[in-house]
Amino acid sequence: MLHTPHGRVETPFFSVVGTAGSVKGVTPAELRELSAGVLLANTYHLFLRPGAKTVHELGGLHRFMGWDGPIITDSGGFQVFSLGFGLEHGVGKQIGMFPGDAPIPSRRQGAKLVRVDEDGATFTSHIDGSRQRLTPETSIAVQEALGADIILAFDEPTSPLHDADYTRQAMERTHRWAERCLAARRGGDQALYGIVQGGAFEELRTASARFIGGLPFEGVAIGGSLGKSKADMHAVIDWSIPYLPESWPRHLLGIGEPEDLFSCVESGIDQFDCVAPTRLGRHGQVYTPDGRLHLSRPELKEDARPIQPDCGCYTCRTGFSRGYLRHLFAANELLAYTLTSLHNLHFILDLMRRIRAAVVADELGALRDEFSSRYRAAYAAPDVSPQLAGGQ
Amino acid sequence: MLHTPHGRVETPFFSVVGTAGSVKGVTPAELRELSAGVLLANTYHLFLRPGAKTVHELGGLHRFMGWDGPIITDSGGFQVFSLGFGLEHGVGKQIGMFPGDAPIPSRRQGAKLVRVDEDGATFTSHIDGSRQRLTPETSIAVQEALGADIILAFDEPTSPLHDADYTRQAMERTHRWAERCLAARRGGDQALYGIVQGGAFEELRTASARFIGGLPFEGVAIGGSLGKSKADMHAVIDWSIPYLPESWPRHLLGIGEPEDLFSCVESGIDQFDCVAPTRLGRHGQVYTPDGRLHLSRPELKEDARPIQPDCGCYTCRTGFSRGYLRHLFAANELLAYTLTSLHNLHFILDLMRRIRAAVVADELGALRDEFSSRYRAAYAAPDVSPQLAGGQ
Repeated sequence: MLHTPHGRVETPFFSVVGTAGSVKGVTPAELRELSAGVLLANTYHLFLRPGAKTVHELGGLHRFMGWDGPIITDSGGFQVFSLGFGLEHGVGKQIGMFPGDAPIPSRRQGAKLVRVDEDGATFTSHIDGSRQRLTPETSIAVQEALGADIILAFDEPTSPLHDADYTRQAMERTHRWAERCLAARRGGDQALYGIVQGGAFEELRTASARFIGGLPFEGVAIGGSLGKSKADMHAVIDWSIPYLPESWPRHLLGIGEPEDLFSCVESGIDQFDCVAPTRLGRHGQVYTPDGRLHLSRPELKEDARPIQPDCGCYTCRTGFSRGYLRHLFAANELLAYTLTSLHNLHFILDLMRRIRAAVVADELGALRDEFSSRYRAAYAAPDVSPQLAGGQ
Repeated sequence: MLHTPHGRVETPFFSVVGTAGSVKGVTPAELRELSAGVLLANTYHLFLRPGAKTVHELGGLHRFMGWDGPIITDSGGFQVFSLGFGLEHGVGKQIGMFPGDAPIPSRRQGAKLVRVDEDGATFTSHIDGSRQRLTPETSIAVQEALGADIILAFDEPTSPLHDADYTRQAMERTHRWAERCLAARRGGDQALYGIVQGGAFEELRTASARFIGGLPFEGVAIGGSLGKSKADMHAVIDWSIPYLPESWPRHLLGIGEPEDLFSCVESGIDQFDCVAPTRLGRHGQVYTPDGRLHLSRPELKEDARPIQPDCGCYTCRTGFSRGYLRHLFAANELLAYTLTSLHNLHFILDLMRRIRAAVVADELGALRDEFSSRYRAAYAAPDVSPQLAGGQ
């Protein structure tokens, strides 16, 4: 159980992502009806637009986005580096990870989009091409102005393309920045989490978990490269967790496909966030117990069944048919995005509730076996591998 | 009071437009919460995509779109002719009427998009450029397959650019088509409305109202050109209504800006439909008692007030600030369209409720004076003149 200034929340939990201060296509009332507990918003996006001052003037992030439950903000580090390095090297969660993604246009093709120095990072805004700067101190100041319940230390994540040498340098810088973040906070009732880095290198992850675990944070996030496979991801978790304080909640940044939840919870992860439910939904892919269903499939044109007949979400309960949803996508109707997002969010939040109950009843293995025996079976979908994990 | 197979509805009422089988950005549950009574969907759009057979296979229009209240479908005539003539001559409600409208791309630039003959109309689909055909008989068959509560006769509307001679020819053809629509219906519990045409010519409108009023329809719609000004529009209504049966409900097609409702109800109009609340909302324009507020205005950036402080809609009640809404538009967040559409629909539906109460209390004049003394006063917005009125 996590206690926050905006209420208690049971762990493990899935945070719904509201990147720029809204969950795309879903109202706070609908989130309440979904029993969504925690939202995660992105410091990078809100820092660039509308700016922390504006959010603060408008009453802080909770009032701004009409959400009186707990909110997490990331530090901006992931976006600063993934939008820079990722764009330069064609890797990262932002590009090509999901179907329909278009590369983010760069105003300075070929130019270095992000420069890191000991003090902080200078980067190019993806919105207007302007040069911007974040440091541990400004990231904390921005996050304090936004006013989320849980805030994150400013870090330098690395990608699977970085070698051990650079990953070590970035990790050590992240450690020095972690101490500066702790020194910069003005107190208040926000929980500050440290971030473990070190890429997919056992020695570095262990060192980072030891270092971050020894600082006076209230919790921890595991960020940066989680390797090139699900096996790598689990190794990274297993290398890190033994060196972190038992009492700290542990957040795995940017992860949360249905098949990931079981194994990560088994490894000791308490908090997740992922754009997948809403982003996949907007691209016409919906979760079912059998795997992802692509609503664009022509044979669904006159399929009168709901996405998942025994589902309790608004979309399935109301009886919207697969044929209707397919039509809404064909006609570019806005309602398509709302109805699929509501279903996918319900699917993942409901799965997380069942996982919580199974943990309490000591039946997690049985639930995982039941889930795994069906999921992916009917609807094959390309695997989405988290090359660069982070707060987005 | 209007009795339909899907419930009773008090007149005068405003029908919320769900062109392609969904109200853009708004769920049926939200429409219920708004106490929206009647929806209007477009036969033209549903005929082209997904097709009447598909809607029928998926349980009919009510089940298709998840709406168990009354539904009206227009006949397709307005879209067939406005997308043809309108595109060729640059007039019509579809193009340039609302801010941000882009011309609908034509696959056959320069070609005639619609050809009318005595039997029906052949036209080019705006979706895929294919040649399509509707006749009075097929329009009724399509509308019967869709299964709305109120259906409309297939007509040939004219624009203000048509002269008296052509307007008379089209009107007389509309009259012959009206008789064919009545002969084509297979019965059932759908109400079939005739459509009065005749442009802005007194002699023609009078003749059309006499002719249509003498046929065994269950109600009537006033369509086609309503002239070039609000004064013309009221003249057209006043020429038509005296010749129509007292017991028939009268629908004014495509009209429904706040300032129109009072005078049209005073003239005897019972039913309205208009895309303005949702379309203006999607373009960042919201109704207030003082007129339309443009959310793009820079001085709203840190305006913490809701759109309208005393408004009971979800958006205002939750306290979403003008600054937040402005941010959502700047960031192209889908939630922007939902929140402004909810407010605008509440505004117009609530105004209609107050008009109904004022009619009963014989205080319509006082309500109109109170409304008019404020509306437009503070926020000037370009007048939207209905050059070609119709079901869209």
